[in-house]
Amino acid sequence: MTRIDLNSDLGESFGVYTLGNDEAMLEIVTSANVACGFHAGDPLVMAETIERAGRNGVAVGAHPSFLDLWGFGRRPILGERPADIEKHVIYQIGALQALAQAAGTSLQHVKTHGSLGNMAAEDDDLALAVARAIKAVDPGLIFIVMPGLATERAAEAVGLRLAREVYADRAYADNGNLVSRKLDGAVIHDADAAAERVLRMVEANEIVTAGGRRMPVSIDTVCVHGDTPGAVGMARRIRDRLAAAGLTIAPFGTWL
Amino acid sequence: MTRIDLNSDLGESFGVYTLGNDEAMLEIVTSANVACGFHAGDPLVMAETIERAGRNGVAVGAHPSFLDLWGFGRRPILGERPADIEKHVIYQIGALQALAQAAGTSLQHVKTHGSLGNMAAEDDDLALAVARAIKAVDPGLIFIVMPGLATERAAEAVGLRLAREVYADRAYADNGNLVSRKLDGAVIHDADAAAERVLRMVEANEIVTAGGRRMPVSIDTVCVHGDTPGAVGMARRIRDRLAAAGLTIAPFGTWL
Amino acid sequence: MTRIDLNSDLGESFGVYTLGNDEAMLEIVTSANVACGFHAGDPLVMAETIERAGRNGVAVGAHPSFLDLWGFGRRPILGERPADIEKHVIYQIGALQALAQAAGTSLQHVKTHGSLGNMAAEDDDLALAVARAIKAVDPGLIFIVMPGLATERAAEAVGLRLAREVYADRAYADNGNLVSRKLDGAVIHDADAAAERVLRMVEANEIVTAGGRRMPVSIDTVCVHGDTPGAVGMARRIRDRLAAAGLTIAPFGTWL
Amino acid sequence: MTRIDLNSDLGESFGVYTLGNDEAMLEIVTSANVACGFHAGDPLVMAETIERAGRNGVAVGAHPSFLDLWGFGRRPILGERPADIEKHVIYQIGALQALAQAAGTSLQHVKTHGSLGNMAAEDDDLALAVARAIKAVDPGLIFIVMPGLATERAAEAVGLRLAREVYADRAYADNGNLVSRKLDGAVIHDADAAAERVLRMVEANEIVTAGGRRMPVSIDTVCVHGDTPGAVGMARRIRDRLAAAGLTIAPFGTWL
Repeated sequence: MTRIDLNSDLGESFGVYTLGNDEAMLEIVTSANVACGFHAGDPLVMAETIERAGRNGVAVGAHPSFLDLWGFGRRPILGERPADIEKHVIYQIGALQALAQAAGTSLQHVKTHGSLGNMAAEDDDLALAVARAIKAVDPGLIFIVMPGLATERAAEAVGLRLAREVYADRAYADNGNLVSRKLDGAVIHDADAAAERVLRMVEANEIVTAGGRRMPVSIDTVCVHGDTPGAVGMARRIRDRLAAAGLTIAPFGTWL
Repeated sequence: MTRIDLNSDLGESFGVYTLGNDEAMLEIVTSANVACGFHAGDPLVMAETIERAGRNGVAVGAHPSFLDLWGFGRRPILGERPADIEKHVIYQIGALQALAQAAGTSLQHVKTHGSLGNMAAEDDDLALAVARAIKAVDPGLIFIVMPGLATERAAEAVGLRLAREVYADRAYADNGNLVSRKLDGAVIHDADAAAERVLRMVEANEIVTAGGRRMPVSIDTVCVHGDTPGAVGMARRIRDRLAAAGLTIAPFGTWL
Repeated sequence: MTRIDLNSDLGESFGVYTLGNDEAMLEIVTSANVACGFHAGDPLVMAETIERAGRNGVAVGAHPSFLDLWGFGRRPILGERPADIEKHVIYQIGALQALAQAAGTSLQHVKTHGSLGNMAAEDDDLALAVARAIKAVDPGLIFIVMPGLATERAAEAVGLRLAREVYADRAYADNGNLVSRKLDGAVIHDADAAAERVLRMVEANEIVTAGGRRMPVSIDTVCVHGDTPGAVGMARRIRDRLAAAGLTIAPFGTWL
Repeated sequence: MTRIDLNSDLGESFGVYTLGNDEAMLEIVTSANVACGFHAGDPLVMAETIERAGRNGVAVGAHPSFLDLWGFGRRPILGERPADIEKHVIYQIGALQALAQAAGTSLQHVKTHGSLGNMAAEDDDLALAVARAIKAVDPGLIFIVMPGLATERAAEAVGLRLAREVYADRAYADNGNLVSRKLDGAVIHDADAAAERVLRMVEANEIVTAGGRRMPVSIDTVCVHGDTPGAVGMARRIRDRLAAAGLTIAPFGTWL
């Protein structure tokens, strides 16, 4: 029987500002990537997200980012040394870990957010810095990585457990990275099509790129989104389809 | 033989901005209160301060604050619930603790900064929130408290070890709190006078208030400052005087 | 024929975060208090709010605040000198004014936000600092004030035009300030009741306090809210009721 | 008789943090580029810098930046549309302009800071956005530009007066931009050599690049630095050398 995890970015509210539909998503996903205050989130939001996730049996992980609240961590910020970014990542994981411990739980994983994630997927030095940061805080943490890219290599190099992730609604380039959102066909908008596609990838253990290349990969987790009503609907559809096919849907920390 | 610790606020630089003379102070003090990014400090400064303290045999602790970089945590910010401030304190301690662990060391203590410290000394609910935050992150952490005030009561109530602190250069009011800086005689400017006064307090185990009240207190640590050349000189004078009197000067974590 | 203005706090989004229902409110109100980046808002939100207000014939004004994005400017921040707050207010008005000018328009007014507003209503020194700031940027700006309180006195003292404001949904204490939200009866939740009450105040030129005191006042503007669907409904109800009674609803800058 | 201006980046302190030696530099330069709160500076520092500049007969201008206090505006931040950066620049100029007006003075110029400046010098769309922002706030403002680069073209395209700037201590590449600091010979460290070089450039009306190319240019202002004691010494040496050669040293606004 195949097992699969569903992960989503949660806890992205800040102060009076609310973002996303965490309540709905916590009934769908099994792993929550929690913002740590650098691109979104604050100590109250983080604590509340940990508490809600616990009530829903959802595992929590840190979602570190560049320090860029205004740009939501989506802007590429250049000019930082990997060794410095390493400290920024340690800081964020440590802050969330302490809040998790105060709530009587612990972190399952780490996933990089936004531009930090995009850059780490393509830059071995940066990916290694992130991996070292994770290991320094807790060598038991699992690193969510893009199969075939720098983050996967970095997790293996430093000896971290890793969870290989696919995106339900995004086309893949031949190098294994996502096709830019600016290109035609980069984003799949139909929930049923996305659900069938995910099921195929998980059952066949492979990613099929836009160019037709078949990348064999053992998939642990599927990234889904909750920032629009449509996204929540697609996430639910994917979960239902995977469950209907007989897959066990659970946090990847239960088997990795 | 009496033992005494000297503590100071360090790691208060931020980005390109440098504050204080950490290099000089790390040769004088035995415990460093490290800013955690809310009133000062950033992940790079925190990591560097931990590393430098280690090289000097100085124990490190967290120095949590209100979120107020512009005001350096000195402005009283009202309207927060103690349960919310608890989360802010957990976040900050956790962030520093992770950086300490990454550097192969661990935290000795926690001391509240600025307005958060002033308010916690007078407000039992707030002091308890801080004490609970410390215990939640690590029950082995030592809470630096003002003898006779709310922070001391809170540390005892939640079962934390505590280090009782006196100020070398400040007069005490009859309630055990510091005399406001705005009043005449509140601040002692002469280094020799401050050093003799500290020695007397430590040897006699008592604070003598401006009004002549004698408060018996077992003193663990003396707070000294490094923000001006004069302050560094006074700190050195105090250390020399205590050492000349035969006291062992060491981090309080070695005996508490 | 009596004229009346309706004002509301708008442009309170920030980066990816959206707050309020500006689109709906811009069809109801005649004056928009635009956040200036200190408690909410950013240059893009400010420019967009100015542009949208213009399309709806809504006059714009600055809504300066304490620097407190996380707390949305609602937390009382103590320890600032009025002369320093004056600079903060000038900065914010100037930033908005430049964006207004770039859009081919100009500012009508200034209203203080949140805790800065509450504190200025009770503190003559602070209210004078705000009034001086307004006058320094543009002596033609109109200061929205609370009748009978420090802001009204300050506007008169420095020679600014002023718009006297009432709240549709809030009970008044006998000193002319709002009854604290924490007390019973402080907030009126029924839209019809609020609309009738506003009409009575505007037509009778008086505020009736919770204690029954009658304060004669020439009312220029009514503050309405748009942060919940219910609030938008009440605002629309108030506008409709005032219009049905034959009042001209227009920006106060057209007659003051 | 030739006239020349000396400009420097000032007002870069923030809250409790002090940066640079503004007092010394205000006796050397004739134009001050004042930080506007995005990479450095705050309303109090801005107001104080304007006031001090006025006492020294130094003209003031805005020094807008990316929003990046931690990185001091030096990190390239990608992913912004020029139309959005235009709003950020308008905001900053407007804030400073209002503070200048409150002090009874007005702005002479605008110069972009750090990464925003580097990027605008190479990107015509971005340079045009900055030029439009300046013109929108006040068409009388002078834009400090790099001769031969995008900012010069943008100033001319929108019809702004411009001041052509050279760097005293930096080598020039053949395209007219500065040689990267990472390359050998990029920075001139000897004060006398820098002073002689500036004098030659100003008198000959040309920049000689590292590759030997001669770029004819009418030089209006020389950028000098004050961030180290050595920098202040070099700035003073340059001023003295230019004065000794009979040049009139004055704000460029007096002749442009």
